[in-house]
Amino acid sequence: MGPEGEEQAVRPRIHVITLGVGDLERSLAFYRDGLGFPSSGIIGTEFTGSATEPSGATAMFTLDDGLVLSLYPRAELAKDAGVDPARVAGSGVAFGHTVGRREDVDRVLELARRAGGTVPGPPHERPWGLYAGHFGDPDGHLWEVVYFIPKAGLVDDPARATGQYVTQGSPS
Amino acid sequence: MGPEGEEQAVRPRIHVITLGVGDLERSLAFYRDGLGFPSSGIIGTEFTGSATEPSGATAMFTLDDGLVLSLYPRAELAKDAGVDPARVAGSGVAFGHTVGRREDVDRVLELARRAGGTVPGPPHERPWGLYAGHFGDPDGHLWEVVYFIPKAGLVDDPARATGQYVTQGSPS
Repeated sequence: MGPEGEEQAVRPRIHVITLGVGDLERSLAFYRDGLGFPSSGIIGTEFTGSATEPSGATAMFTLDDGLVLSLYPRAELAKDAGVDPARVAGSGVAFGHTVGRREDVDRVLELARRAGGTVPGPPHERPWGLYAGHFGDPDGHLWEVVYFIPKAGLVDDPARATGQYVTQGSPS
Repeated sequence: MGPEGEEQAVRPRIHVITLGVGDLERSLAFYRDGLGFPSSGIIGTEFTGSATEPSGATAMFTLDDGLVLSLYPRAELAKDAGVDPARVAGSGVAFGHTVGRREDVDRVLELARRAGGTVPGPPHERPWGLYAGHFGDPDGHLWEVVYFIPKAGLVDDPARATGQYVTQGSPS
């Protein structure tokens, strides 16, 4: 924190996660129809944009706890952020989704695969106390489905940890 | 949702956001010292990994509402997910951070710039009712700092919208 103290800080909060996508309809189908996330579909189509102004068409999902997951074409994201389109290619981010039963890891991965996602390999145990596997959405954005192994010490109470990680653990 | 109904759905929730980073210390400094996000520093260093097993060293921030932001070396993320390292290069994702005053957009962008982030351009108004600007963290992960313009119609109550978007709007 800077010398001016409290005024210098940024509230530690993320309100929206925007995923740059190649095809809005395809990604909407993956998350809404494949995974079952609630959405009112594609909105904002009245904002058509231009060569330099981003368009407004997007699909949003209000997740539990109010966090919003937003799908937005990569080209529009680049225009909106004022960066080169190559900058928003790829995805060096993974979203951790915690489940309460070990078998739910396998179930969610299979569901994602059937919905058009990719599953790079089978789930695995990690020495920091979890059983987990990854899938990629149609644009390659990674998700990790995580089950905390009871008494592995990563969390005090794995049942509660489906709602929240503790900061004393290692990466999901 | 599949034919088996409820059992087929995935709970719409993200518990952890893991950012692939090039340098844990540098990213920790950016988020903790630069932006003021709370963290207990780098943990999990006892899990050293191998050529094929990911290491456990990470830094975590518990954000408001319990969402965890985790920093993890890109190379380890690739090993953990079982994907090619090239797959986790770049960042086609933006994190929306809503503020309650227009001047906070400028303040947070300046703070991010001073902390070692990049600001591609000045903030801008968008026709869907907001004033916003982007910054990139040291690895290029994008953040958008958003102020909802009152009576622009995007949200019913901009003051409340610092806590939550509504799904009737367009992208941040």
